[in-house]
Parts: sequence; structure tokens; C-alpha cells
Amino acid sequence: MAELRKDPIVDRWVVFAPDRAKRPLDYSDAPPARRDGPCPFCPGAESATPGEIFALRPEGSPADAPDWRLRVVPNKFPAFSAAVDSDRPGSEPLAASELFQTAPAAGAHELLIESRDHDATTGQFSDEHLAAILDVCRQRMLAWREERRWRQAILFKNFGPQAGATLHHPHMQLAALPQTPKTLAEQIAGAAKYFQRRGRCVFCELVEQERSLGERIVSNDDGFVVFCPFASRTAYETWIVPERHSANFEQIDSAAVAALARQLRRTLARLEQTLDPVAYNYLIQTAPFDSNASDHYHWHIEIIPRTTKLAGFEWASGWYVNPTLSETAAERLRATESR
Amino acid sequence: MAELRKDPIVDRWVVFAPDRAKRPLDYSDAPPARRDGPCPFCPGAESATPGEIFALRPEGSPADAPDWRLRVVPNKFPAFSAAVDSDRPGSEPLAASELFQTAPAAGAHELLIESRDHDATTGQFSDEHLAAILDVCRQRMLAWREERRWRQAILFKNFGPQAGATLHHPHMQLAALPQTPKTLAEQIAGAAKYFQRRGRCVFCELVEQERSLGERIVSNDDGFVVFCPFASRTAYETWIVPERHSANFEQIDSAAVAALARQLRRTLARLEQTLDPVAYNYLIQTAPFDSNASDHYHWHIEIIPRTTKLAGFEWASGWYVNPTLSETAAERLRATESR
Repeated sequence: MAELRKDPIVDRWVVFAPDRAKRPLDYSDAPPARRDGPCPFCPGAESATPGEIFALRPEGSPADAPDWRLRVVPNKFPAFSAAVDSDRPGSEPLAASELFQTAPAAGAHELLIESRDHDATTGQFSDEHLAAILDVCRQRMLAWREERRWRQAILFKNFGPQAGATLHHPHMQLAALPQTPKTLAEQIAGAAKYFQRRGRCVFCELVEQERSLGERIVSNDDGFVVFCPFASRTAYETWIVPERHSANFEQIDSAAVAALARQLRRTLARLEQTLDPVAYNYLIQTAPFDSNASDHYHWHIEIIPRTTKLAGFEWASGWYVNPTLSETAAERLRATESR
Repeated sequence: MAELRKDPIVDRWVVFAPDRAKRPLDYSDAPPARRDGPCPFCPGAESATPGEIFALRPEGSPADAPDWRLRVVPNKFPAFSAAVDSDRPGSEPLAASELFQTAPAAGAHELLIESRDHDATTGQFSDEHLAAILDVCRQRMLAWREERRWRQAILFKNFGPQAGATLHHPHMQLAALPQTPKTLAEQIAGAAKYFQRRGRCVFCELVEQERSLGERIVSNDDGFVVFCPFASRTAYETWIVPERHSANFEQIDSAAVAALARQLRRTLARLEQTLDPVAYNYLIQTAPFDSNASDHYHWHIEIIPRTTKLAGFEWASGWYVNPTLSETAAERLRATESR
């Protein structure tokens, strides 16, 4: 029997319909074929990207030399660019008509090339290497905050073609925007509403209740609670939430970065082992730089495995149909030996 | 240069980034392989589906006999079911905790098997056949309205595996829900806000302005305006909006059904010719049965071609990155000879 579950933070329902996993399929779900070709992110191809903004490399090694451990470069195909007039806030209309408002796509859009290894997955990184990656995310956020031009950082990884990755070489995308976009704004507003009503951060409350119930917990170590949310939008959706309340990811300290890297790596390794083929997006959801969300918002990581396709129902409704109960997903992930 | 465009109805921006279409791709975008196997929707396989709710068939032919022209059957793998307790509205929590609210997945979930021909596309149907299909949608809505248990109809087609279709045989999905879901509720609320401010239906205004500008118009005949919306979420997103104001699709008359069928068939034939491989969702967006949205809402069809994948940016932000300007899409669709 299907069941509707309401997201505790935003006004959205998910339809859990386990029977739908039994549907016949006319199409294979194998991932699309890989294409051969030179990789612009591999060592030796540094000139294929714009000049680096930041890199971890041996002391004395010059910028864009091939002996890096990770690199941050401007996206060659940016959705957002600092070159456009950023004095004009994104929310102010440029066009004459109320119905046709435009704004310059002001912002930053960078790529974090995570590894020299073309085929490495995040689950295969060392804990130390993933900590270095997350620390670079933090540093880029601090640099953007310093610039005082941007309001919001959006940090994510697309892994696998089903998750919208176009290049195979491991990389994250880091963007800075002049305003807080829809989904994040809704989450922050939902958290603010909860805080007004209950005087507590909804994420703190959620973590507490998940820990006491246990059935949706994947792991709970090192100050981070890893769980499959009650109203997961996709099968095996998994969140990593710090126990310590903090709205802004960029305020994390080095000990917490190391602990987060351990939890994120272990969780992705579990997903890589459990789902085949695995494809996912992971998002670091964090408050705006200049917000007063510090009491009610709580940064966290959302991992969205892309096992099912979004179809007409999701487009029409904004609700999701999920064939796997969160409790089942958590149980399977717990049972996967973590490397 | 990328440009942000604001949706005129809901608070959502789209990033138009034509340069991103030039990105290198490590993955082929060929559709997944077709699987062979018996089709539960083909003539002769009627026992593979639950008994039919409705069919077009020769006079005297019994239910579930193989000489049908189209059939409506309950979904064998429903996301929503009338069997669950429908006295309890979906918005009322069943679970003890505020954070973990559930509701029964009460509703109807039906399949409209559109054709006897396993491989037919909507663009290949005759105008008369598509009119018969749309008329069945209308009749199902009227039947649900009569039942007085449901608040909202969701009618859509998933075409192609990239659009979430699991079976190849042409079919639509028709669902009745006890509440109006998120995306549609936001669109209705946006339209209500516009009406309060300007005293006019935003869709009527939009159609008027699109017609006078012309650059996003695909066609404009028979009382329907077909255009690529200013803030299209995906490349080649196309809307079909009736010129005559009406909030509820089920109130359409037969002459308008015939005209709509002509416009929808021609538009999908154009998309089939322009995009290869073509995959799309189309949605009939209509007001709730019992709403007082009749002044400000306006039913219409949204066609969402699935040329790009939703990735981390869309999940994190709720905004969309679109590589094709609406004006370019409309120009190419206009230039496609319509069959």
C-alpha cells in the first residue's frame, strides 16, 4: 500500500509506492556508453581549462603545472559570470514588462577538479584527500564572502551521466549567486517557520528524533548523523547533518572537516556498493553569507541517488514518487560493510 | 553571455546559458536499449491489465475484448488508490510527530492506452484519434468530479525513457488526488497574486503579449496559442494555451477538443522532427475541481522536452539551466514543416 509522507521542512509530499519497483521495463537501465577522447581535467591537459584559481601542489610548483593534487578553475562554460554587472541585484527587473523580467547572470561558476585519477570515485578517495577537497570548498566560500558581491554559495557534485554529469573525471561545481534560489529559500523559510513555532532549529530536532528512533540512521559517529530522510524524494536519499548547530558551512573547523570527510566518504562508498549503476548528486546546503538564518538554519549535505527518473508526475505536481521506503534504504546501507 | 529570466507566474529564475551547449561530453546521449518482451498494452494482452474502466470499441463488443481503439485501465502499480480511506484528507497528519507526518495515498491512478499500435507516437496519430484521447481525459475528469472525493486531476504523458517512461506502448497517466500538489498550487497562487494586483488573468495577458511580440510563437490557430515560454525550464519547452479563458480543462467543449488535438498533434510532430532522440513529458495543468480559481487560473498544456538532465544545480536551487533561448527554439519549431 502506498503512503504519503510530508517533508518536515518544506510543504511537499512524497508518495512511497514500493509496488512500483515491480513494474515491467521496456528499456534497459544501463548507463549510456562512454565516449573516448582527451580529458580536459587530466594531468598534462592544464591548458584545456582556464588558468587555475587555486591548487594543491608541491611548494615552488608554478600555477597550471601538471604536478597538482587538486585544482579549482573557472568553468569554461559558465552559467554565471563575474564579468557581468554585479551592482544590479539579480532580483531587479531589467526588461520593460512585468511578465518578461531578466537579470544578468552575475556570479561565479568554478570547477573543483578533485583528483589526478580520471576514474576515481569519491568513495575511493582517502579520508585525507576528501578532507582537502571539502576544505577547498570552505576556502572558496570564505573568499566569496570576503568579496561581498555574492549572497549565496551553491556547492555540488554530479556523479554519473544519469545525474547530469557530462565529464567523467571527478569534479565538483562551486557557484556563487547574487540571490538565494528557490529550493534553498523554501527550506530556509520552512526552518524559520518551525523556529517561530517551536523555538528550536528543525534540523537539531530532526537529528535528535532520528537518533532516538534509529530506524532511518545509516551511521552516527564523529559528530555527524547520517540518515535517510523520512520523506526521501528518491530511493536511498541520504543526509549528513552535523550534530553541532551551525547555519553556515564555511564556519566549519578543521577537525569537523576531517570528520565530515570520513562520514561522507563512507556513506558514498556504501551507496557505490549498494546501487549499481550508481549515479548521484550531492549538495552542500548552507545559509546565505549575510543572512540572519543562524538560529534556525543548519547546514548539511543532501545526497540524491538518481535511481529513478523524474517523470510527468513530478513535473506536474512537484511531489515525488519513491519506490523505496527510507527505513528499507537505511537498513540496506547499514548492512553494507563500510570501507 | 548568460541571462537570468524570471518566470512570470511563480518565483523561479531560469539561467539561459547557450555556451553550455558547446561543452564536451564523455557520455553518448543515445537512448537506453529497448528490451524485448510481451507488451501488456498490445491488443490481445487485455488480461495483463486490470479490467477496463472505459474503452472505445465497436458496439456490442464486450469489455476487455481485443477490438478496442483505446482503453482506460486502473494502473496495476498505482501510486494512488481509491481503496484507502478517503474520508481522511491528505493534508491531515496521521503520525504522532509533527516531523513525521503521513497520509494515506488516496486517489485514482489510471492508464489511458492511447493506441493499438505499439510504436505510434502522438505526432503520428490522426487528429481525430488524438481528439478522442483528449475527450476521454475530459470524461474521466468529469467522472472524478462527480465522485466528490477528489480535489485535483493530474494528467500527463511520459514519452521516451529519458522522460521516465517505463513502457514503450503509447499511453497517458491520469491521476486524481485529494489535494492540489506543490507545483500546481504555486502556479495557482502566483496567478491569484497577479490577478489581485492587475485585475486580469496572467495567462490571458501572457497570450496577448506573446501574440503581439511574435518571437516566441510556434503557431496561433484555431483558438490556441502555441509558444515557447519566456523562462522555459528546458530547451524547447512549449505551452499550448487556449485563447478563451477557462480554469478547468473538463469544461472544454467538443469543438475546442478537436482544435486542441490538431494543435497538440502538430506541435508534437514538430518536436519529433526537430529533436532526435525526442523524449518529453506533457502535462494538462488544470484548476482543482472545487476551487474558486475560475477568474485567475487558466488551464493549458505544458510540453517539457527532456533534452538536458536535471543535475545538482537544479536539485540545490530549484532554478534551471537552459542552453537554448526560447526565441531560438520557437524559430526552429516554426521552421519545421508541420504535417
